[in-house]
Amino acid sequence: MTSVTSLFASVEADLYLLSENLKNLIGASHPILYAAAEHLFGAGGKRLRPAIVLLVSRATITNSKITPRHRRLAEITEMIHTASLVHDDVIDESDVRRTVPTVNSLFNNRIAVLAGDFLFGQSAWYLANLDNLEVVKLLSEVIKDMAEGEIQQGLSRFDTTTTIEGYLAKTYNKTASLMANSAKAAGCLSGVSDQVAENLYHYGRNLGLAFQIVDDILDFTASTDVLGKPAGSDLVSGNLTAPVLFALEEKPYLEVLIEREFAQPEDKEQALALVRDSKGIQRSREMAAKYAQAAVKNISVLKPSESKQALIDLSDYVLSRLY
Amino acid sequence: MTSVTSLFASVEADLYLLSENLKNLIGASHPILYAAAEHLFGAGGKRLRPAIVLLVSRATITNSKITPRHRRLAEITEMIHTASLVHDDVIDESDVRRTVPTVNSLFNNRIAVLAGDFLFGQSAWYLANLDNLEVVKLLSEVIKDMAEGEIQQGLSRFDTTTTIEGYLAKTYNKTASLMANSAKAAGCLSGVSDQVAENLYHYGRNLGLAFQIVDDILDFTASTDVLGKPAGSDLVSGNLTAPVLFALEEKPYLEVLIEREFAQPEDKEQALALVRDSKGIQRSREMAAKYAQAAVKNISVLKPSESKQALIDLSDYVLSRLY
Repeated sequence: MTSVTSLFASVEADLYLLSENLKNLIGASHPILYAAAEHLFGAGGKRLRPAIVLLVSRATITNSKITPRHRRLAEITEMIHTASLVHDDVIDESDVRRTVPTVNSLFNNRIAVLAGDFLFGQSAWYLANLDNLEVVKLLSEVIKDMAEGEIQQGLSRFDTTTTIEGYLAKTYNKTASLMANSAKAAGCLSGVSDQVAENLYHYGRNLGLAFQIVDDILDFTASTDVLGKPAGSDLVSGNLTAPVLFALEEKPYLEVLIEREFAQPEDKEQALALVRDSKGIQRSREMAAKYAQAAVKNISVLKPSESKQALIDLSDYVLSRLY
Repeated sequence: MTSVTSLFASVEADLYLLSENLKNLIGASHPILYAAAEHLFGAGGKRLRPAIVLLVSRATITNSKITPRHRRLAEITEMIHTASLVHDDVIDESDVRRTVPTVNSLFNNRIAVLAGDFLFGQSAWYLANLDNLEVVKLLSEVIKDMAEGEIQQGLSRFDTTTTIEGYLAKTYNKTASLMANSAKAAGCLSGVSDQVAENLYHYGRNLGLAFQIVDDILDFTASTDVLGKPAGSDLVSGNLTAPVLFALEEKPYLEVLIEREFAQPEDKEQALALVRDSKGIQRSREMAAKYAQAAVKNISVLKPSESKQALIDLSDYVLSRLY
């Protein structure tokens, strides 16, 4: 299995710079924010979103030299992503993310709401100052989509009438929209044609959907150690993902357990067992693979380069997390 | 005393339309959001910010007919303002605002964070789709400023080393930046000269500062009935406003009470009495009057019209709330 670090080798130095910049940017205004920024941008996240922006940037500009505006776009995507995580953790009352305590648990809800708003505010400002109306439109679409995705997820907990289409729409809004629109925006900054820009959008969209479906499968198949949070956390919090929705088609008792919100002592374990015992995991895997393959096709329009190859390998990497 | 309703007579119909639009816009996506939107946009707020945008729009376009883009800008300002109120109430753990329960108390923190993010997301998207990079820059400056103001206020509670300059900087960020930049943006949409645009900016800035200083005075001089929340709420929550900062210069015991965060039973009443007994109220009034007068001067560049007169009267109205 390729590691994500080796995939990002060509943009490694840029990603390091990005984390340092973000820490200083966010931390400069207040000591408590500095602690939060250290925590958020130093926690060894995958930096998948800025990496995609940087790789697309290199793969689309003529001399493969990243400009300050491409770099700023990468920072903006990470700021928007982090802001949404911080608020999601308040909304979901989560204590742990990727093995580290969340801002709301480490500090409190007040600081977490403040820190998220601050990141959104900074990102809106940096975005406007990229001085490119098309890029502003693409990324503000993301901000709108993510908030709609929050609503769709936050207000539909334990809703067993959720369809796979509803799940995919929510997943696009919460995860794939950022990857799709920022990949396209990176291309726009490089001056690609409309057709290439559309292909980059679909690459990000398909990769993002594959990535999130895999994440949702891992909630059932990975260990607590690997996840950095208890397995089955999504299900227990009422977030019904692809494996659950497929499982509901063949396990009617699962519906009973979900609808009573796991009120009885054995309900959680029983529900997890029902999902694991169903075809839900396998069907979800197939769906993720389909999106990952589509992503690779989308970027066939790009001319060969180390960065293009990394973007292709990224789609394999996304699936390889399952094995 | 002129009522704010009579001041806004010329844009009354536009303001009604705006509230209805916002309710539908926000409420369409989910029943719970509809309840929150009813609550937020039907609660009989003053709609001061969209009124300023609409009046500036009418005062600056040639035929005084408001365009859909001016109207959209007015909606965006109200969305940004409302989003910040909803999150402020989470941060300050407030239960009541303008005599009505807050979203966080009526629903819960989750819904309030969601509703605020949704409003920010929608406003960013509508903003980008005004298709005017200058206006995008002005309003994204506001979003950044408001988040910085939240930090300045939220993380400096009970800090008796706060200066009047620090208070004014925070007040600009939290309140005046929106009025300043949206007044200027309305002018930009009308195609005014750079010099008029700057004057509109300063009109909004000065009016906003006067408005907030008056609000901060009312926290000490108005009754609970008028305020719709207990008098002295700001002080008790550690938000040190102009009257307090001036009072601290002549009442050293006030510092003791604030620094122990009103831990003893009589501390709150004693602190309120010390402020009311100081020159803090009077000095704050003089400061507010100075900003209100400056605002009137700023718009002397506009040609005479009913809307220009309403903008002038608005600065009297702001001060008249004290009497």
